[in-house]
Amino acid sequence: MTWQEIAQSKQERTISAIPSEWIIPNNLKPQDSHLDVTSFPRESGWFTQEELDITESDATSILANIKSKSWSAEAVTRAFCKRAAAAHQLTNCLTEIFFTDAIRAAKSLDEHYSKTGQVTGPLHGLPISLKDNFNVAGHDSTVGFTSLVNKPLPYNSTLVDLLEKAGAVRYCKTNVPTAMMIAESVNNTFGRTVNPQNRNLTSGGSSGGESALIAFKGSPLGVGTDIGGSLRIPAACTGIFTLRPSFGRFTTQRCTSGLAGQEAVNSVNGPMARTLDDMILFAKTVVDAQPWLVDPKCLPIPWRTVEPKPKLKIAVLWHDGIVAPTPPVARALRETVDKLKQAGHEIVEWQPNLHPKALDLLKRMFIADGGKSVKALLAPTGEPIRPEMAMYETAEELGTFGMWKLHLERSDLQRQYLEQWTSYDALDAILCPTTPYATVKHGDFKYVGYTGVYNVVDYSAVSFPCNVTADQEKDQSAVQDQPLSDLDKETRQDYQPALVHGMPVSLQLVARRLEEEKLLAMTKTVLQAIHGNDSATVKSAL
Amino acid sequence: MTWQEIAQSKQERTISAIPSEWIIPNNLKPQDSHLDVTSFPRESGWFTQEELDITESDATSILANIKSKSWSAEAVTRAFCKRAAAAHQLTNCLTEIFFTDAIRAAKSLDEHYSKTGQVTGPLHGLPISLKDNFNVAGHDSTVGFTSLVNKPLPYNSTLVDLLEKAGAVRYCKTNVPTAMMIAESVNNTFGRTVNPQNRNLTSGGSSGGESALIAFKGSPLGVGTDIGGSLRIPAACTGIFTLRPSFGRFTTQRCTSGLAGQEAVNSVNGPMARTLDDMILFAKTVVDAQPWLVDPKCLPIPWRTVEPKPKLKIAVLWHDGIVAPTPPVARALRETVDKLKQAGHEIVEWQPNLHPKALDLLKRMFIADGGKSVKALLAPTGEPIRPEMAMYETAEELGTFGMWKLHLERSDLQRQYLEQWTSYDALDAILCPTTPYATVKHGDFKYVGYTGVYNVVDYSAVSFPCNVTADQEKDQSAVQDQPLSDLDKETRQDYQPALVHGMPVSLQLVARRLEEEKLLAMTKTVLQAIHGNDSATVKSAL
Repeated sequence: MTWQEIAQSKQERTISAIPSEWIIPNNLKPQDSHLDVTSFPRESGWFTQEELDITESDATSILANIKSKSWSAEAVTRAFCKRAAAAHQLTNCLTEIFFTDAIRAAKSLDEHYSKTGQVTGPLHGLPISLKDNFNVAGHDSTVGFTSLVNKPLPYNSTLVDLLEKAGAVRYCKTNVPTAMMIAESVNNTFGRTVNPQNRNLTSGGSSGGESALIAFKGSPLGVGTDIGGSLRIPAACTGIFTLRPSFGRFTTQRCTSGLAGQEAVNSVNGPMARTLDDMILFAKTVVDAQPWLVDPKCLPIPWRTVEPKPKLKIAVLWHDGIVAPTPPVARALRETVDKLKQAGHEIVEWQPNLHPKALDLLKRMFIADGGKSVKALLAPTGEPIRPEMAMYETAEELGTFGMWKLHLERSDLQRQYLEQWTSYDALDAILCPTTPYATVKHGDFKYVGYTGVYNVVDYSAVSFPCNVTADQEKDQSAVQDQPLSDLDKETRQDYQPALVHGMPVSLQLVARRLEEEKLLAMTKTVLQAIHGNDSATVKSAL
Repeated sequence: MTWQEIAQSKQERTISAIPSEWIIPNNLKPQDSHLDVTSFPRESGWFTQEELDITESDATSILANIKSKSWSAEAVTRAFCKRAAAAHQLTNCLTEIFFTDAIRAAKSLDEHYSKTGQVTGPLHGLPISLKDNFNVAGHDSTVGFTSLVNKPLPYNSTLVDLLEKAGAVRYCKTNVPTAMMIAESVNNTFGRTVNPQNRNLTSGGSSGGESALIAFKGSPLGVGTDIGGSLRIPAACTGIFTLRPSFGRFTTQRCTSGLAGQEAVNSVNGPMARTLDDMILFAKTVVDAQPWLVDPKCLPIPWRTVEPKPKLKIAVLWHDGIVAPTPPVARALRETVDKLKQAGHEIVEWQPNLHPKALDLLKRMFIADGGKSVKALLAPTGEPIRPEMAMYETAEELGTFGMWKLHLERSDLQRQYLEQWTSYDALDAILCPTTPYATVKHGDFKYVGYTGVYNVVDYSAVSFPCNVTADQEKDQSAVQDQPLSDLDKETRQDYQPALVHGMPVSLQLVARRLEEEKLLAMTKTVLQAIHGNDSATVKSAL
């Protein structure tokens, strides 16, 4: 079989795993020219009221409704399976589908609860979607490579076991770019995932199957990964929340990687959700499960309750000196800073002097093997390298001696970044763009510098929707001044106000390494400055 | 200048840094044939009673005496400078000497205390010796290479600053083997450090200048480093205490390394001391200083108070299947296990199935750069590679792709080791030899497997003297059974009961990764089982 045939048959198998009752009837299916499909579930009449009520609730409410027996785990699971099936048919967001197993697991949870009166754990009955690289025994983790089709894994990722023990129901895996090393979710096996809010635009990458699914409300809570922005970029492209933790908080053991064994910068995984509270739910559940007892790379740092500080000191990074944010993002940052000032927080400025060096290091670390890892996964089927990954094709392999020198450069940069942080008196956080874009049309995502720098220093970072949507009137291009770089020039040229009109804009809040609890507490404070103190509004910020 | 001339002049400069009043008079100096020089300070008449009282106290008592103004920091510093000077003249243990600065610093501490009534920190006035690779501004860190002579560093290691802020007085640095990658402390710049308890025998390596100095009581507390056993081996060779922490507790930032940038297995540093309490003093002081605020690789794990468990579950590793402990160590392990059983602790057995793989990985990680790091430091002066380091000469450099695969093998081994640990119900610790030897004659240290395995899995480990001394009557060779390996055979052949007669024997207690506080508490429990519950005895276990 050619790689194209393998891809074709794999795509067909994914679709055929959807029960026929959940295939959208032809007469209801939106035309391809219909760009925003997020209203489909509510407007098509194809979903019951209960299915809508369930899938439009956040994870925290779903768990409460299961606990109070308003909803069974089975009903919840069925509703999300159906909505995920629709999401896939409209955005091409899924890779592996195991709805039947999920419904069986949900029934068993219902029986247990009914018999014992006890939930099995803090996530009892909650469907959780998984990025394709989380291994589920008996299923592929192709991470986009045709050579990994029909290579089911014999074991689960450690996090998958942990979530199941906590009561979560796994029901599907979601699309990624090849090797998870492109900022849009496109690969030769499954093709391209599109943004449900505007199918001409990207849902980002590499966790862009997740972001599309969650933005469509086909999942209440998903798990993605991040080595250069792969959680934060797709979250920002779809206006959902994510937390990139520092390495060692949430287990990454036994996941599939595109650059297996690469450790100069560590991949991490984290939650993607529609509310801050759901991120906290995930984070606390994973840490409370003491993952360090099963994953030797996890740190024995228990969940630390943090009292929110009434007055934060936040350094704003207006632009990183390489690519300035496009007008909607620049405006979102200005408006958010204004609201923070009005709420009494102290705003200072962050100088990005160290950012170019950090990004240079990140790139060199990714391609240090001369692209051999990627090439070894392409070779068996003769699959071509994707154009977005040209740098892996031309890279020269570094020897270990060179790699050690690269480690020294990176450690020095990390030390300098922390020194800069400490040079402020009691700085709490950095506020900056997550990406220069609200989102972009397919193929136009060119710059990951705002996220990548925090992978190099391994800081904890949240991407959050800041209650601003791109507006073609307000966000006209302003191209008077000199571009910061060629890439900045290109970014300005690519930007078209009408294209992203109406898309949500997100920002990034950054705390130091391993300050996840403090960061989540600060995110709440920032949301309060944006939305006011009505916690219900903060909760349903999307 | 030839490398020999550089070495000669460096050695002369070290000696010439000792004030003439602290050069041992010729008529008092022990003959070279005088092997145990530890009694020299007390028997020579060259030390005052106060100098003896000070230097024979442990760090905890010294601090109490300074606080109560029984001793000035200056008197304490002078006493240790003098005894360290003697140690160097008798064992060749020092590299850099800065007694004048130390006395000035001590005077300034005394003035501060006298003026304010406040000590400057928890280590106020305590002299602390440093392994050669700790950078002290204005001084070399040659780590044995002639090419690094006369290359004074422009900055301090982060830990050096931290200790100074805590009130410690730095006064000297101590000898190491070339690149710190030999288990005895010998190099082409400073030559060989010998064991003050028997100068025919090694004080171990790579922190063997420290162990010789501390065993001679020329330092109350020293800091060494460990990447394959470099703290534990010299501690065991001299019967002192050490703690190898997991990576991330005590800062290693801005230290000099022999394999700079190597991160597949991380070097750590830790205290070397004559009592358990002094190790705890060091560990708590460093962690309380929150090193994570200045070193991005340090973990924000505060000092965790641990209640000692009355009954421990300990797995004994009798031998690792590669090299069995020599008779004194085997007997020490048996006697200690008997005492633990008598004290009511539960003893199970540890199977070393994973040890050969771990040691294979460790070796491959050390030489992955094809020895380039070492060769680059030898080349400038034409210094020859030492015969003990032959594997660095012949190694082939691994490409980064191969290095990533090696990381995967190591991570898998780490996972399996933790699974084995967890397979016991609530295991607290592993008890095993620190080395197969009490110590050895110069050149005979051939096996670091008992320590190296815990570098690969990054577990916390203590080496402690177990109140057994080698005894030529009790510890006759027993060579009936088949050797475990060629190296085991050689170890048996090298072993001569008379050679190590009277030398202290140490054992290793191992806890999981980042369990330093629990490990120190368990060490106390083990010492109580050995010495009885008289805490004074436990404190002065040496």
